Amino acid sequence: MTDPSSPSSARSAAPLPLAAVWSGPDSGFALTPRPRPELAPGEVLVRIELATICGSDLHTLSGDRPTPTPTVLGHEAVGIVEEVAGSVRTVDGRLVEPGGRVTWTIGTSCGSCRRCLRGVPQKCTAVRKYGHEAITGHWGLNGCFATHCHLVGGTGLVTVPEALPAAVAAPANCATATVVCASRRAELSAGDSVIVTGCGMLGLTAIAYARELGAEHVVACDIDEKRREMALEFGATAVCDPSELAEHAHKYGADVVIELSGNSRAVQSALDIVGMDGRVALVGSVSPGPEVRFEPNTFVRNLSHIVGSHNYTVDDLAEAIRFLAGTPAQDLFAGLVSDPLPLTDIDAAVTAAREGIAPRIALHMD
Amino acid sequence: MTDPSSPSSARSAAPLPLAAVWSGPDSGFALTPRPRPELAPGEVLVRIELATICGSDLHTLSGDRPTPTPTVLGHEAVGIVEEVAGSVRTVDGRLVEPGGRVTWTIGTSCGSCRRCLRGVPQKCTAVRKYGHEAITGHWGLNGCFATHCHLVGGTGLVTVPEALPAAVAAPANCATATVVCASRRAELSAGDSVIVTGCGMLGLTAIAYARELGAEHVVACDIDEKRREMALEFGATAVCDPSELAEHAHKYGADVVIELSGNSRAVQSALDIVGMDGRVALVGSVSPGPEVRFEPNTFVRNLSHIVGSHNYTVDDLAEAIRFLAGTPAQDLFAGLVSDPLPLTDIDAAVTAAREGIAPRIALHMD
Repeated sequence: MTDPSSPSSARSAAPLPLAAVWSGPDSGFALTPRPRPELAPGEVLVRIELATICGSDLHTLSGDRPTPTPTVLGHEAVGIVEEVAGSVRTVDGRLVEPGGRVTWTIGTSCGSCRRCLRGVPQKCTAVRKYGHEAITGHWGLNGCFATHCHLVGGTGLVTVPEALPAAVAAPANCATATVVCASRRAELSAGDSVIVTGCGMLGLTAIAYARELGAEHVVACDIDEKRREMALEFGATAVCDPSELAEHAHKYGADVVIELSGNSRAVQSALDIVGMDGRVALVGSVSPGPEVRFEPNTFVRNLSHIVGSHNYTVDDLAEAIRFLAGTPAQDLFAGLVSDPLPLTDIDAAVTAAREGIAPRIALHMD
Repeated sequence: MTDPSSPSSARSAAPLPLAAVWSGPDSGFALTPRPRPELAPGEVLVRIELATICGSDLHTLSGDRPTPTPTVLGHEAVGIVEEVAGSVRTVDGRLVEPGGRVTWTIGTSCGSCRRCLRGVPQKCTAVRKYGHEAITGHWGLNGCFATHCHLVGGTGLVTVPEALPAAVAAPANCATATVVCASRRAELSAGDSVIVTGCGMLGLTAIAYARELGAEHVVACDIDEKRREMALEFGATAVCDPSELAEHAHKYGADVVIELSGNSRAVQSALDIVGMDGRVALVGSVSPGPEVRFEPNTFVRNLSHIVGSHNYTVDDLAEAIRFLAGTPAQDLFAGLVSDPLPLTDIDAAVTAAREGIAPRIALHMD
């Protein structure tokens, strides 16, 4: 007699997970049933509630960022726990149980290498990233463009409140947590005059988060007028195009500049305009580009800082969820994400993402 | 009847203060009696016990750094309080009283401007610096190459333990406190692999201070072999010349690079070699020089930091005195300072400083 409620029976009774397996820019996606994974102790199987297509997924899809294949892309998601092996806890110590709603870090960390011990687990020497790795026998559901994602050991988990709309929660584990980490590294704090350059998904998030932290002024800079209008909605106290940036920095101050465009001229401008004891957080520059420069004597006398920020820690992700759950801009964040398309329409979803119909195109798995 | 112990009587009975008034590179010094100042409330008159000639004094003397004249140069000193007007306290809350041994911040701060309130009083919008200002009617004893220094309001005072040799204490309020501030801004902490470029007075101090803070490795880099030998005495765990720097950084790590040489190639090397999540503190670049450069994508992915550090806060000065009072390298620090010459021999002292006979040439005022 087999107990029908046992995990093994649940596995055999449930339909197989389905993944949009991607084999490279020329081969595209193939919706492929995948075996339900045999979880090792400490692992979690999550049913994806909603996934969003990040700009970095588009870079991979166009071949601009080499990724091992075949793979399951997608790393921005929120999901419902279906199965847990052993005792797994969220970052705040809650036991992870089936039915729980969670998000998780984009990368795993070993917790014991020098980088992990020094507070930068995102650079763990054994890091594995969701949506960035080749499919293996054990780890076939390693991205979020799938009905299920297999969370391996060393993944940081964060509870997602039931009331937080999935469209708002899904980008948290990339866009929002990255902004939180950069703001922390730039020591953004109450009373700061903040400048945000680049008003896409991350820029709009940075504007709202800077206001949440008590920034006095938040100047948003973008070449695109529509984005500047959105920046005002998200809480920017002034907006400008790049030609007006120096003037705005002079007028409002520049204690913190968060550079999210990745444009090297914007990076150079950030270094040029930052105020006394000001901090420049570089975030958007994730592809090789031209060098930028500064004059050391001016840098020293102005007590300048420049800090690079890439990815985040699980604590940043928890802070991202806390922020999104409480922000008065929640409806605006929801509005950045399209009505979800089914996973079976992933090609259309990618086309929509490329066309920039919304800052994030969403996929549902029903 | 006049009470002979009253301050005014003490003033009239004491010999007039004597200052080495400097009127520019062509005019040089003139030992000049100065009226004993009428202290305003909150001010202190200090009898200089020992002053040292800083590298920046030499820059001023050679005309490389414009300074208003006539002036009294010198800012590194330790002294004995002779007179106090009103209630003045050291940074740790002790009442300043005649006979007390003190050092003081190189600059004053108003305590109420935005920079003061944001933790960078050294950039106070109303800063006045000892050894850097023109003589005025009220403030004629405004440098340390004099028998007395007139400490005005907004000067941070720190008690100097009686047991601390004057030769060790005198450079604290420039060299040591600057190193403490830079180490703080670079978040230097136990277990760090540290690289110090430039092994003059500040570099040797940085080496000993990094060891004090628990640095695991301290690699010292200098073009000069004798300085590299001194670096080993001060606690460097390895030394190299600039051509070997990248190799040493690779071998030992580079969590923190403290750049004290001011050489732009050294600054560029510092940016090039810093490790994952590493911090470069730029300190030595205090004259205009060539630009340095970096590639933003590498900077972002390596979580790099660059921070400029110039001068310090009164808390840094208190930490500098604490460090010097307890360091096992105290005799080595004393050895960096020449046997003092009398103030009347200031021209000879400057010549000796220019010739680099010792990292610091000292002046006594007897």
